Amino acid sequence: MHVMINREILTAAISDTSRAVSSRTTIPILTGIKMSSHSEGITLTASDSDISIEYAIPLEEDGNLYVDIKRHGSIVLPARYLNDIVRRLPGEFVEIEVGERFLTTIRSAKSDFNLNGLDPEDFPRLPQIEEEKVFSLPADILKTMIRQTSFAAATTELRPILTGIMWSLEEDQLHFVATDSHRLASRKSHVESSPELSLDNIVTPAKSMQELSKILSDDDSLVDIVATDNQILFKTKNILFYSRLLSGTYPDVNRIIPQQSKTDIILNTKEFLHAIERASLLAKDGKNNVVKFSVLQSPAIEISSISPEVGKVTEEIQAASIEGEDIKISFNAKYMLDTLRTIDSEEVKVRFTGAMSPFIIHPTDHEQSLYLILPVRTYQ
Amino acid sequence: MHVMINREILTAAISDTSRAVSSRTTIPILTGIKMSSHSEGITLTASDSDISIEYAIPLEEDGNLYVDIKRHGSIVLPARYLNDIVRRLPGEFVEIEVGERFLTTIRSAKSDFNLNGLDPEDFPRLPQIEEEKVFSLPADILKTMIRQTSFAAATTELRPILTGIMWSLEEDQLHFVATDSHRLASRKSHVESSPELSLDNIVTPAKSMQELSKILSDDDSLVDIVATDNQILFKTKNILFYSRLLSGTYPDVNRIIPQQSKTDIILNTKEFLHAIERASLLAKDGKNNVVKFSVLQSPAIEISSISPEVGKVTEEIQAASIEGEDIKISFNAKYMLDTLRTIDSEEVKVRFTGAMSPFIIHPTDHEQSLYLILPVRTYQ
Repeated sequence: MHVMINREILTAAISDTSRAVSSRTTIPILTGIKMSSHSEGITLTASDSDISIEYAIPLEEDGNLYVDIKRHGSIVLPARYLNDIVRRLPGEFVEIEVGERFLTTIRSAKSDFNLNGLDPEDFPRLPQIEEEKVFSLPADILKTMIRQTSFAAATTELRPILTGIMWSLEEDQLHFVATDSHRLASRKSHVESSPELSLDNIVTPAKSMQELSKILSDDDSLVDIVATDNQILFKTKNILFYSRLLSGTYPDVNRIIPQQSKTDIILNTKEFLHAIERASLLAKDGKNNVVKFSVLQSPAIEISSISPEVGKVTEEIQAASIEGEDIKISFNAKYMLDTLRTIDSEEVKVRFTGAMSPFIIHPTDHEQSLYLILPVRTYQ
Repeated sequence: MHVMINREILTAAISDTSRAVSSRTTIPILTGIKMSSHSEGITLTASDSDISIEYAIPLEEDGNLYVDIKRHGSIVLPARYLNDIVRRLPGEFVEIEVGERFLTTIRSAKSDFNLNGLDPEDFPRLPQIEEEKVFSLPADILKTMIRQTSFAAATTELRPILTGIMWSLEEDQLHFVATDSHRLASRKSHVESSPELSLDNIVTPAKSMQELSKILSDDDSLVDIVATDNQILFKTKNILFYSRLLSGTYPDVNRIIPQQSKTDIILNTKEFLHAIERASLLAKDGKNNVVKFSVLQSPAIEISSISPEVGKVTEEIQAASIEGEDIKISFNAKYMLDTLRTIDSEEVKVRFTGAMSPFIIHPTDHEQSLYLILPVRTYQ
């Protein structure tokens, strides 16, 4: 292979592709990025055990020359060094020339690197995906759905299925759910798909989705999504992003979401967030970052926390409205903070069904999001 | 003590004072900040084994009320919590009231903290300094002098005196030197002092000076400096910053600075820096981050580096001028990067006296700075 590539485009391509390179792999070839030339340009590929990314750099775009191919071929180069080198090269174009025994020269202006490459034949093939179940949604909505659910997934492997986000699709309605069994996040969105397409029990690793999120653009350009039994593929203009699916049956979460409530409280999201932040300050070293929430004298709410060695905090906030019974309840401040930080609406509605029952939080401006937190039993 | 303090001023005061709080101390009282009220306002004090800081908040400034004292007194509060709490409080003012057994209430708007305080009588007294040797220099120049020398001080305690910056003052000329015995940085500056004042062998810990640097403003407001046998005191408008001095005799560095040179090369600082950065990319995991520097064919300079497992780099840069003999020399890239990153002038002059001798770098636009690096012996 002997090619010239625009340095800015190559830097972006390596940076995105690197997200599929694991720094902890014991398989040397997987610490590399595979570069291949073909008639339409250059493809960069990287793969770890969870995700694979393929990035296409076209020959030209909008009249700008991106790639000049002098001799076709392919090579695997160490991702870490490639990233550092290309980012710092001085010229507008980067010349990459593969010589004997995969020794590769990377040249730009008066800068000249010789890197030991690896045999591209040893690089794993990407999964073949049959495009049966295809639907599309705008990149910014997909990012929002990931941001508003992935934080609630389990981070330990005690129940591997809970480290994922559960997808379902029915009647053009896409639904994400994540739960670590102490709290839950659910987000729905309308998508473009054929009416007969339905999905159920598709579970994508939350970590993979967070990596995908970093690659997606912040605009409404459509992402095509192809789901199979064990893989899911996301297609954007330049990128193919593959993720494995988690195997197993996701728990039925519908039965734990209470359908009625005894107390409904509407609060300003930021005021509530800041009060919980302060209430949790003294407990941050403690294992149980528990805060107490109680209706003081409607519409005043008291949030308090005690850390025996350090001291105690009492916060008072005014609810926009309180309906139903008075409530005294304790919960993990971290779960509430995670939730409130992902909610974009100005106000939230909190719906309680008793001091020992899970309670629901949702934005007041739409019905697409729902969060659930299990309370903590305290003896005070 | 019962006081009201403007939250913004208090946040800044706690943040600066916290620099003298060690997180690793085994003496509980030293994890705290002492607050005392007096007729002119509030004083915050913190102290670790190296530095002490006293921050004065006046009753008012420019017609703005900063402090309202309801009852005089003092208290020691845990620095870490104090910092986090005050920064997040909702109101414009913070009310601090000390009750029984040092239990302290911190109140702002509807937020109410109770913190376990400590007895202010147990807090160590700050050193008493006799103002014998006093001189002044602008804060921005002091910051520059610290930045351009402290990086060259030793970071290990093998020879404790080398972890410091050596100060000397003679005929209104202040001189800083730091060396870890592999490289050296020297910086001079004119100061305002009485002509008979002279200092020698005053060695301040480089780390303390870096902390001081973070507190100093970026303008030319004067800093008064008082040196004694074992302490040095820096006085700004609001802050007293004390540092202990290192004991021992600083090595005589003048005899290792070569007075003549055989090769003088002038290079563009940024081009040289970027070439060394790239040349050191492949070696960054290696212990000896060695690059080779050689005059290729005047005015072309070659900078190269080899990492057997990864590959090699060759960089070519054009010197602005080369005078004297050709030179081939190897040195630690990190020392050169540290040096070039602190130099503000557009061009640097590098002066060699042979492949095995220390060489000198200095900016071309003034004579106040001098850097010295010892070369590395290579067998190629």
